[in-house]
Amino acid sequence: MNSCMIIGIAGGSGSGKTTLAKNIARHFGDKISLLRHDDYYKANSSLSKEERERLNYDHPDAFDTELLIKHLDMLRRGEAVNSPVYDYSAHDRSKDIRHVEASSVIILEGILIFENKEITSRLDMKIFVDTDSDVRILRRIARDVIDRGRTLESVIEQYLSTVKPMHEAFVEPSKKNADIIIPEGGNNPIAYGIIIDKIEKHLSKNEF
Amino acid sequence: MNSCMIIGIAGGSGSGKTTLAKNIARHFGDKISLLRHDDYYKANSSLSKEERERLNYDHPDAFDTELLIKHLDMLRRGEAVNSPVYDYSAHDRSKDIRHVEASSVIILEGILIFENKEITSRLDMKIFVDTDSDVRILRRIARDVIDRGRTLESVIEQYLSTVKPMHEAFVEPSKKNADIIIPEGGNNPIAYGIIIDKIEKHLSKNEF
Repeated sequence: MNSCMIIGIAGGSGSGKTTLAKNIARHFGDKISLLRHDDYYKANSSLSKEERERLNYDHPDAFDTELLIKHLDMLRRGEAVNSPVYDYSAHDRSKDIRHVEASSVIILEGILIFENKEITSRLDMKIFVDTDSDVRILRRIARDVIDRGRTLESVIEQYLSTVKPMHEAFVEPSKKNADIIIPEGGNNPIAYGIIIDKIEKHLSKNEF
Repeated sequence: MNSCMIIGIAGGSGSGKTTLAKNIARHFGDKISLLRHDDYYKANSSLSKEERERLNYDHPDAFDTELLIKHLDMLRRGEAVNSPVYDYSAHDRSKDIRHVEASSVIILEGILIFENKEITSRLDMKIFVDTDSDVRILRRIARDVIDRGRTLESVIEQYLSTVKPMHEAFVEPSKKNADIIIPEGGNNPIAYGIIIDKIEKHLSKNEF
């Protein structure tokens, strides 16, 4: 019988967890499935854009975690899912969907996935990417200002008012739930090699 | 050509690093070699027992790291070594030796091994076992009072005067040099499985 392994990759904003998840996904192509908690931000279409900008996107309640869990369970049963897609410039769920096929290895990536017991109880391996807060804020500034066209002032204001306090309240304590912690996840070839080996071993025993 | 992999396991006093190293060594038996930095405490036979008791055993200078590095290099070249053995009740190097055969995987365990560049440059994988300080001191008390017959007062005095300040000065900062960090190393089956897989893969490709 085939068994499915779900690997969670968590870490603060700018920690390098997305880079790590993307590199793993690129390495294995369609042999593995990738879900991102960020894609499951709640739809807030009833609010104005200004109201949506003021929401706290770093609190667990900002996510439609119920839908994510439903999708995780479907993938584990071998059923494909349609993941929502989030539009960061509109601060709302987009009309797009991302079709994700089932496979015997599922990567779930997200800032807050180790904070929720309903999620952690479904994870076979929990990897936390740990990076210093100064490096993380610099990456966040680069991403939000350069890539997403936000103002530096708005990034600083959001960081101090919600990102940092939510990190300290939810993300940092959830590190305790990790099985392994990876310093500098996006640029750590030894840890990357260990994860690749582990997935390869699982795939070789559980072809889908 | 066979290649040798040297894995370092570091972490504070009572972190569980010794348990992790022992479990790995037990799993693989004589297929792997194990060195412990603690065995390389300097001989202090010229001092009285009272003077030896007052030494700072948590500072890098307490170790004969030169000899350890010589032995690491010999093992990597395929040569067996005679590790010194430390006598904790006498606070001195004992007259015993421990014969260690070479193999294609060498585990090096020690509190301060990630603090020294001469050591870290020789390590192919650096694993740091991370455990809360309250749990660590409780384990240290249990070990030193119950197993090694020291008084509770002497353990507390040594902890506050040298173990804790040296931990903060040398051990904690050296965590930055780790490739992976393992919470609760002695009792973390997922991380243990990953390390076992990695070693098995290396052994299967590099029979000695």
